[in-house]
Amino acid sequence: MGQRDYEIAVFDDVALQSGFTLPRVELAYKTYGELNAARDNVVVYPTWYSGQHPDNEWLIGPGRALDPADRFVIVPNMLGNGLSSSPSNTPEPFNQSRFPLVTVHDQVRLQHRLVTERLGIERVSLVTGWSMAAMQSFEWGAAYPDMVERIAPFCGTAKCWPHNHVFLEAVRAAIHTDAAWDDGWYTTKPHRALRAVGRVYAGWGVSQAFYRSELWRDLGFTSLEDFLVGYWEGFFLERDPNNLLAMAKTWQTGNVAANDRFHGDFEAALGSITARAIVMPGQTDLYFTPEDSEYETSLMPNAEFRPIPSVWGHFAGVGAHSTDTNFIDQALKDLLAR
Amino acid sequence: MGQRDYEIAVFDDVALQSGFTLPRVELAYKTYGELNAARDNVVVYPTWYSGQHPDNEWLIGPGRALDPADRFVIVPNMLGNGLSSSPSNTPEPFNQSRFPLVTVHDQVRLQHRLVTERLGIERVSLVTGWSMAAMQSFEWGAAYPDMVERIAPFCGTAKCWPHNHVFLEAVRAAIHTDAAWDDGWYTTKPHRALRAVGRVYAGWGVSQAFYRSELWRDLGFTSLEDFLVGYWEGFFLERDPNNLLAMAKTWQTGNVAANDRFHGDFEAALGSITARAIVMPGQTDLYFTPEDSEYETSLMPNAEFRPIPSVWGHFAGVGAHSTDTNFIDQALKDLLAR
Repeated sequence: MGQRDYEIAVFDDVALQSGFTLPRVELAYKTYGELNAARDNVVVYPTWYSGQHPDNEWLIGPGRALDPADRFVIVPNMLGNGLSSSPSNTPEPFNQSRFPLVTVHDQVRLQHRLVTERLGIERVSLVTGWSMAAMQSFEWGAAYPDMVERIAPFCGTAKCWPHNHVFLEAVRAAIHTDAAWDDGWYTTKPHRALRAVGRVYAGWGVSQAFYRSELWRDLGFTSLEDFLVGYWEGFFLERDPNNLLAMAKTWQTGNVAANDRFHGDFEAALGSITARAIVMPGQTDLYFTPEDSEYETSLMPNAEFRPIPSVWGHFAGVGAHSTDTNFIDQALKDLLAR
Repeated sequence: MGQRDYEIAVFDDVALQSGFTLPRVELAYKTYGELNAARDNVVVYPTWYSGQHPDNEWLIGPGRALDPADRFVIVPNMLGNGLSSSPSNTPEPFNQSRFPLVTVHDQVRLQHRLVTERLGIERVSLVTGWSMAAMQSFEWGAAYPDMVERIAPFCGTAKCWPHNHVFLEAVRAAIHTDAAWDDGWYTTKPHRALRAVGRVYAGWGVSQAFYRSELWRDLGFTSLEDFLVGYWEGFFLERDPNNLLAMAKTWQTGNVAANDRFHGDFEAALGSITARAIVMPGQTDLYFTPEDSEYETSLMPNAEFRPIPSVWGHFAGVGAHSTDTNFIDQALKDLLAR
């Protein structure tokens, strides 16, 4: 790439829940807008599975809830996503297959250090995000209840429910099956693995109704196979397999209660989230299901359950469908007005 | 195996829709009960994706709708399933990767020849079956409306709907990704491919609610990973990859209208099924969805839509859960009484 459009915060000797200490962690982030005088316009908006900060920008802009004229939006790149410290960019010995598990809890703890130690911020008006970023939003709410005023997780849950775990096992198996993956020590891209991940993901990312109605046409594809190759294989061919595996582990182990404070008591962790919240699952999401979301929301004292009425499945929250985008944006406006 | 417990009907020079002519086709089948004097107690009950006739026997027995004391039940093994002609047992040159596509239409045409030419039967009181056998049941109804009195497809549709096709692409990709598959010319079992198929299938075969409630405990497994290895990997390790690919193609191309009679007119084909029918999708089936089933049933003149109220997903019809089994059995009794 040319001129870098983001900042990097460096943290030394970062101890992780997994028992490893990374000597040097780079947390890549980008900010949009300015911190106001009252220092009360901060939005934290993390990234999703393999997404990077530019992939979040569809929800930021003039007239949006996240209008840089009013808000100071911080997008921290999740570790493992290829910009922040990841298997693909970490020096030996923690490179490639030896990159340690970084939990959602670890991710948010680092983001908290960025926001407080480096940016000097004491209050966050909103944490929001899609998919794994929704998981991080719940974590922010549970870990820093006195700091976080609102959360708006969309298409994501507070832990990785078992069926979601099983879906990710298929993603992992697709990579593991390619001999070119070589236990993670490949020197050239194991493209078969990545194409297979694309085909595995294709069935999960959107809904049955999406395919029934051939909504891939709305994305500019001209046949189902065109969509499978042009979108799904293409999407994952740009990714690094070890990064995908690392983030999958972050996802699978994600649990708002998996830490020293809650000791696995999921109900207690959700009950501790006092932030005002609107929880928005996709109505047809096949892995972060609305049923799991509804249960979780029922345990949160100040939360509204507002499913996205969409046939785009998990992709209701990817920014590809304007009706869903406007629905999410309106919810953020409603929440920020509370 | 020891003593063979089934019969084989041999057909020479079988012309297929795919343009190939198989010199010799073996159709393995087993019958249960006796043809009665009136010759009006015949049930055809085909097999499913990789299933063989013993896998159908849970629905046959004393007190069941398919009681051999009353019914003459014929279970034809689908070509590709390893007992009937398949990639794994066909001689050169049509062995392994060169086994031609055998469509659902081809399958049922052969079964019809078995029933009429070899067994001398003119009327079929019921065609029923699970999953791909449901597809075959619709085909029987559309292809032989004057012969078939009733059909009871469960957890299956009259064509492979697009989302279902995409799910199967993941199954195929899992096999294709293993270098040991060797374009189908393997001489030792590509076990990584089969294990990956197991992990892909695990997310689709049962529902989100099944995993949420840990219903694998009802099947005797003691952890989620125990279920993934012990059931799913184990199940597919017993299969032949080329057979799985051949049957996947049969499934993906399955369409009750894909023949010279209906020329792709799906609505016309379903409208032509005059048999009395009860169509039973699993309420939580993720690939043969109840929505697709309901639409299809609405096009059939004498059909009742009766979804199986189960959280076992597609596995509502595998015979593993007695509540679902009894539901299906009762529907067959109701239908046979009409």
